[in-house]
Amino acid sequence: MSRADPTCSPNDGIAKLVDNHKDRFAAGVATLAFNNPDAALTEIDRAIEDLGLRGIQIGTDVNGRPLDSPDLMAVYETMASHDLPIFIHPSRNYLAPDYPGEVESKYNLFSLIGWPHATSMAMMRLACSGILERFPTLKFITHHAGGTIPYLAKRIELADRRELPRPIGDYLRLFFGDTAVQGNTANLICARTFFGPDHLLFGTDFPFNRNISMNLRTIEEMGIPIPDTEKILKENARRLLRLT
Amino acid sequence: MSRADPTCSPNDGIAKLVDNHKDRFAAGVATLAFNNPDAALTEIDRAIEDLGLRGIQIGTDVNGRPLDSPDLMAVYETMASHDLPIFIHPSRNYLAPDYPGEVESKYNLFSLIGWPHATSMAMMRLACSGILERFPTLKFITHHAGGTIPYLAKRIELADRRELPRPIGDYLRLFFGDTAVQGNTANLICARTFFGPDHLLFGTDFPFNRNISMNLRTIEEMGIPIPDTEKILKENARRLLRLT
Repeated sequence: MSRADPTCSPNDGIAKLVDNHKDRFAAGVATLAFNNPDAALTEIDRAIEDLGLRGIQIGTDVNGRPLDSPDLMAVYETMASHDLPIFIHPSRNYLAPDYPGEVESKYNLFSLIGWPHATSMAMMRLACSGILERFPTLKFITHHAGGTIPYLAKRIELADRRELPRPIGDYLRLFFGDTAVQGNTANLICARTFFGPDHLLFGTDFPFNRNISMNLRTIEEMGIPIPDTEKILKENARRLLRLT
Repeated sequence: MSRADPTCSPNDGIAKLVDNHKDRFAAGVATLAFNNPDAALTEIDRAIEDLGLRGIQIGTDVNGRPLDSPDLMAVYETMASHDLPIFIHPSRNYLAPDYPGEVESKYNLFSLIGWPHATSMAMMRLACSGILERFPTLKFITHHAGGTIPYLAKRIELADRRELPRPIGDYLRLFFGDTAVQGNTANLICARTFFGPDHLLFGTDFPFNRNISMNLRTIEEMGIPIPDTEKILKENARRLLRLT
């Protein structure tokens, strides 16, 4: 892999890492430059078909634009045709102030509570805009167990007046969430109640959190049946990423 | 009460309602015009001492400014001296767009998920700025069981690097939350786990939610001891509002 190679992207590196350490990595996902939608589509096909990656990652916004922006429709269509998931990671940074008169986010709040909110916003825009109605097989995996959506679900369902064929909760339950909740068992129980055991996947938030045994313990502390734990730890990921 | 009376404010009306319907209203709280801080302080004293109101309400921001704005310190000092609570209600509206390129909030998201986020932001600014350290007896009652703070608590506690005398979680647990969660039992259990039974108060969100029996059922469904339920339904409010 040469630096001068025009096809050299972070995705080549990720694919090589997975190939070289199959005992540690079940799969990798692609990172894309969404500022160039045509090139992104070509790279999705290359990353999945040539490099063997098993999904893509997208931010909660693309250069400030929401995930229901029209130029992302081709990306969703492509990922639906590949039948592989889109991982949503929060992308807000400290340069976005939390209050009008300020120049940047204070106290790290853009991340501490801004990231889960940005995840919820992205999920709501995907649901309310009808994208999940248009691409019913498209799969989105959200970080931190669905942002704050499971916590706010009843509020959203009670107040929603969208003109969509199905209730808003039906769309929101199409999302998947990882279990990276930093040991908050009550949080994870709330997320499991909302998503059900088929839509949660084990996640660690490494390297932000390095205590992997805490992640495992939080799942144990939910007190759910063993088959559900197996789904969360292995089977859901196998199914979504289409691993053999 | 004449319209020409310079002391006529919504607070006179609230006080009269409470006085005329003591069988239905245990207490009322004051609304203030925080754009005039000096007048607000005078009105707080009048509302509490003359009208008998038992607290004040504040938005999650004051004309866009966060709740740790310096001009609010005198309000906090006054309320600490009265030993009566400040009710925080979300104040974000649809005119604040959720993404940079948009002119307003779409799909009612400013309220559906923006309001709990605004509550969390207000709580974090009060905690991180040291206001709860400075006024340790000051009591804030938050709507919807503490915004999203109980759900995000472990994330906040794990990542926090504030230079405050106590861990951030200690300050966040000083807040009180109401139980107006639209029937989301897992949400309420998460909030109770975080705040404990002494910091939750029965709330309905009327008239947005008119199903009061649902609010009561959600508390029942938590499966907590009867003494804790009594605290949530009555005793905590009696203590905070200093009702006889």
